[in-house]
Order: sequence, then structure tokens, then C-alpha cells
Amino acid sequence: MVSATAYAMSASDASFEKIEIERRDLGPNDVLIDIKYAGICHSDIHTARNEWKGTRYPVVPGHEIAGVVAEVGSDVTKHKVGDRVGVGCFVDSCGECDACKAGEEQYCFKGVVQTYNSKQPDGEITKGGYSTQVVVTEHFVLSIPDGLELDVAAPLLCAGITLYSPLQHWGAGPGKKVAIIGMGGLGHVGVKIASAMGAEVTVLSQSLSKQEDGTKFGADHYYATKDDQTFKDLRGHFDLIINTVSVNLDMDRYMSLLAINGSLVILGLPENPIEVKGFSLAANRRSLAGSMVGGIPQTQEMLDFCAEHKIGAEIETIAAKEIDQAYERVVASDVRYRFVIDAATFTD
Amino acid sequence: MVSATAYAMSASDASFEKIEIERRDLGPNDVLIDIKYAGICHSDIHTARNEWKGTRYPVVPGHEIAGVVAEVGSDVTKHKVGDRVGVGCFVDSCGECDACKAGEEQYCFKGVVQTYNSKQPDGEITKGGYSTQVVVTEHFVLSIPDGLELDVAAPLLCAGITLYSPLQHWGAGPGKKVAIIGMGGLGHVGVKIASAMGAEVTVLSQSLSKQEDGTKFGADHYYATKDDQTFKDLRGHFDLIINTVSVNLDMDRYMSLLAINGSLVILGLPENPIEVKGFSLAANRRSLAGSMVGGIPQTQEMLDFCAEHKIGAEIETIAAKEIDQAYERVVASDVRYRFVIDAATFTD
Repeated sequence: MVSATAYAMSASDASFEKIEIERRDLGPNDVLIDIKYAGICHSDIHTARNEWKGTRYPVVPGHEIAGVVAEVGSDVTKHKVGDRVGVGCFVDSCGECDACKAGEEQYCFKGVVQTYNSKQPDGEITKGGYSTQVVVTEHFVLSIPDGLELDVAAPLLCAGITLYSPLQHWGAGPGKKVAIIGMGGLGHVGVKIASAMGAEVTVLSQSLSKQEDGTKFGADHYYATKDDQTFKDLRGHFDLIINTVSVNLDMDRYMSLLAINGSLVILGLPENPIEVKGFSLAANRRSLAGSMVGGIPQTQEMLDFCAEHKIGAEIETIAAKEIDQAYERVVASDVRYRFVIDAATFTD
Repeated sequence: MVSATAYAMSASDASFEKIEIERRDLGPNDVLIDIKYAGICHSDIHTARNEWKGTRYPVVPGHEIAGVVAEVGSDVTKHKVGDRVGVGCFVDSCGECDACKAGEEQYCFKGVVQTYNSKQPDGEITKGGYSTQVVVTEHFVLSIPDGLELDVAAPLLCAGITLYSPLQHWGAGPGKKVAIIGMGGLGHVGVKIASAMGAEVTVLSQSLSKQEDGTKFGADHYYATKDDQTFKDLRGHFDLIINTVSVNLDMDRYMSLLAINGSLVILGLPENPIEVKGFSLAANRRSLAGSMVGGIPQTQEMLDFCAEHKIGAEIETIAAKEIDQAYERVVASDVRYRFVIDAATFTD
């Protein structure tokens, strides 16, 4: 066993505390990673606070992991000691179903093993990236290309692929009008990636308070959704709308902004069912769709794309003892745009 | 003016009565059609009974029209006297917007002029196919190929294109698993077309009462949706599900039958908003979409396809004086599978 230091919550209303955890002995296909940075995703908060139910305590969140390979198992060929690597939302899948064979492991028929709070085949509950080290099967370890700093790369492992996958799947590129609803941790990466793909990018944000940033990230247009005129001006306008906001929106209103054959893709899971009128779909042959992160091959493609286009997340780096405070700020939307924990501080 | 005999309702609770109507003088681009058959679509009933509001009385329904050209305007080049022709759900559109230019007139930015109960540019309210004759701009008149009888062709002008368009758009064909929900006026044509396209076709019907017919029309599989086992057996199975049923279904249940990247397309407009959980979309990257008939080029393509594959609607031919009774039977789902009015009986 490898002993690691981690930050965990022991109950839904507890504060984070430093604990010692054990990582499994390296199997032949395992990689031991010295974690350097771990991003804070809003879903970490939902899970840590048991807002989605089913949280097993103590929980060590973190599925935006960037680090360096410290040791490899005897059969590992994909990575070697010293390689710069990342781990995203899942660390295992069945490997045998059609989804896995197609490299769409996120849709594994048997369900993936998530990076934390998920039962492994050996019965152990996974513990995530708020930790000094982690052991992961080589297939689920991504290479972080040179030119992409580990701190700004960490959030790409969840936020980056969550945006890249639908943008790529629904053909964002030259001649396509793409809107991103919400410019937070997910949305700001979406603006950067969609812009680098060559699409004409519009941000639909509640207010214009982040317009200057949006333009810097590559947005061509920026509209406030609290202004009714926005919905009149942009009626039937977009080929693709990516919704990064998890609360229930007036979906018919947003669907009305889609052009013929347009798709609106939700990334967050709102608490209540989504309501949409039949006419909002039938008019203009529109689609309402969903998407969940991306498979391992596409995640590697995303990292390579981001390195090539010099895309990293906009981050605020914090120490481990600041996680509780950071959670409060994420909930209050008071972060531009992603918190990343410096893993060197886990042992402070 | 051309005088024509028609069957009309004068109020939402009236019976059909024979009336005389005027058709406009032939303009240079107009075609005068001697109607031979007019199909009865469920939307005729909704409109005649003012269930969708906005009905202008007297209303002459009918947007599944098959007939023969009796006279053409001076500039008409697309059709000549004696040609076998059809008219579907709309008879005019702006011709200038991107939708019209793309041959997707059904999504005309300014809205199409529907075949009945719609205001024409001259202010007159359109009157539909329950009539001996109709005058329509040549662009909106389709050619019915030899080998396709006019009576079984009539319902293709609405039911046929309503199914053909999404099947074609979402790639029904060899290797694709397609389900049709409901085997009524729309659904039975969908089974025939999807099968002719080479897809593996499954009917999802409330019971197995029409299974023999379904097999005859080309269905490979037939399942009863009142049997819970159906939803277990077919989980994650289909690439495309076409919903021909207008009532509100448990959409999450049907979405669960879609494979990765699958789409469920609604054709009817249920009374209440559609409710769907975010997870039903995000899992397997699914889409919930809508579709409305098809454009003129695609409608012609559909008629040619149906002639080539010997596809007509299954019909029960009635006389004009039987329309009221036929409406009751459509509402009671007591028709296999479409009523067609013999236009020779309008003057009886």
C-alpha cells in the first residue's frame, strides 16, 4: 500500500480535515501519480455535502487531477516515470461493452467507476484528487502535452472535456453560430474552445458583468439574458447552444433562439425535470440534447487541442486549508473561473 | 372565379354540410386541380372542432389532396393539363427567407400559408381538399409518379412526408435500429417507409392487436408498451425513435430505450409541455427532437421513393356524407389506417 495525505469531509456538514489514506499497491497496469494540482468542480460540492445523496464518508473529492508519474506497474506502456499526466472523472469501466470499445467509456453500459465516491471492483470506495498521490489504471491516465502548465490543465480534465465533447460532436467550427449559456467554470472554457474551433461564439450571461473577460476568451458577442430584447434579437439565430447552467431555465425561451436543425445541449442536471413545449421542438426541427464529459480518446484529443491553441482554464490557486472557503465562494459564483488546489499544501 | 363544391363545418359543434365556394382566378403561376381524393388527418378534426383555437368558419379541411391538373396559368412550366398531382399541408410561403431558399418551406421565417384555415396574402382564408377543385401556385403542387394510385397517394402528402422527413434526416437505413411509437395513420406509413429504407424496424404499440399488420408493413419486431418487460428488454436499444402519438407519454421511459447518440423525434404536439429529466438526455448523449412535415423538394423525393418501393397508405374510402361518422371513428382509433374521401361524392 502507498500512504497518501488527503483532505476529506467526514459528514455532509463537516469542514475539510487532513487525513491519511491508503492507495492500492501498484498492479501491472497501474500508474502511481504524484498529484500537483486538483481543481474544484461544483459537483465536488454537491457530493461532499450529500446533495445528490449516496455520499460515503469520509469523502475525498477531486476529479480534475494533474500531476507527474512517480512509478509504473510492470506492464505499463502508455506512461513512464516523470511523465506529466492527468486524471478526469472516471478511473475504470468494463472495457467490454460497445460504449467502452468505441472509446465512449463515460457511457459504459455497466457504469464507470468514478474518481471518487464510487465502488471499485475490489469493493473499495474511490478517493479523489484532494490528495498527494493516486493510483490509476494506465488506460484512464491522460498525457498532458508540453506547453500546457499543470495548474491550468487540471480543470480541463472535467470542465474542458465537458465542453469540448459536445462542441466537437455537434460540429462547432467555421460558419457555425454557437452560444454558451453561463460563463463560469464550465462556460469560460467553452468560450475558449469554441472560439479556437473557429465558430462564431456568443455568450448568454445573466448580466454583462463579465463581458470584458468573455471578449478576451474569444467571444464575438455577449448578451445579457435579463434583458428581454436579447431573446427578440437572437430569435432563430444559433446552430448550437450549450447550456452550462444547472438551474431550471425557461427552456422554450432558449429553444426559440435555435435556427433550423439547431441543438441545445444541457451539461448540468437541473433539480426538476426540464419542461419544453412540443412546438419548441417541431418548429425549426430543433433538438434538446444532453452530454456527459467525454471518453478517454476524446479527452486526450481535447488536451492536445488545448495545448496547440494555448488554452488553459482561468484559475485561482489556493492552499488545502482554504477549501471550505473556496466552496462557499463557488456556491456564491465568486470565482473567476476555477479554484485549483496546490497539492504541495496537503502536507502543510 | 372557379366555383367548386365543398364540405364545410359552420361551427365547432356543427355537422359537415355541402356548400359552394369560389376558387381564385388562375394567375400566371397557378394550377387548377380537379380533386379526386382527400385524406382525413387527425389535425383536420382538431381544427374543424376548434380544439386548437383560431378556426374561421365555415372551414373546409383537407391537406392530403390527390387529383389531376385541369388548367394551368400562362407561366406554369412544372405541370400540364392531365398530370397527376398532389397538394399537402401548405400552399404558399415567402420564398425569400433562408428556410424557403433551402427548400425547407415548412419552416418559413414568415410562416407558411396552410392549405386551409390560413390567411392568404390577398386576405382570403384558404379552403382545403374536401372539395371538387382547388387552385394552387405551381411550386406547391407535387407530381404523383405513375404506379402510385391517387387514393393511396393522398395520405402521403401529410402522413407520408411527416414520417419520411425525420427518417431521412436522422439517417434511417441499413444497420440502424428504428422504433415507431404508435401504428395509426402516421405510424403505419412510417413502418413501411423505414422498412423500405433498410432500417431494422420495431413497432411500439399499446397492445399487440395490430401485430399482424405491422409485420405485413415491414416491421421486424413488435412490442406492447403496456407490458413493463418491453422497457427492460429494449433499454438502450434504438438509434432513432419516432413518436407518432400526440398525447403526453412518460418521456423518460421512452428516452431510456435510446442507444448512444440516439434521438427521439416527436411529430405530434401534446397538449401539455413535455417533461424530461436532465439525466435522460445526458446519459448516452441523447436528443429529444421535433419535426414538422417536410419541404417541397423532400415531399417530391418522398413520393418518388414511395412509387419506387410500391408504398401507399392503407385506406378506407368513404363518401362525403360519411365524414362526420369517419371523424368519430378516427377519434376512437377505429380506422385501419386512413380515411380517404372520394371527391366524386362531393356533388352527390
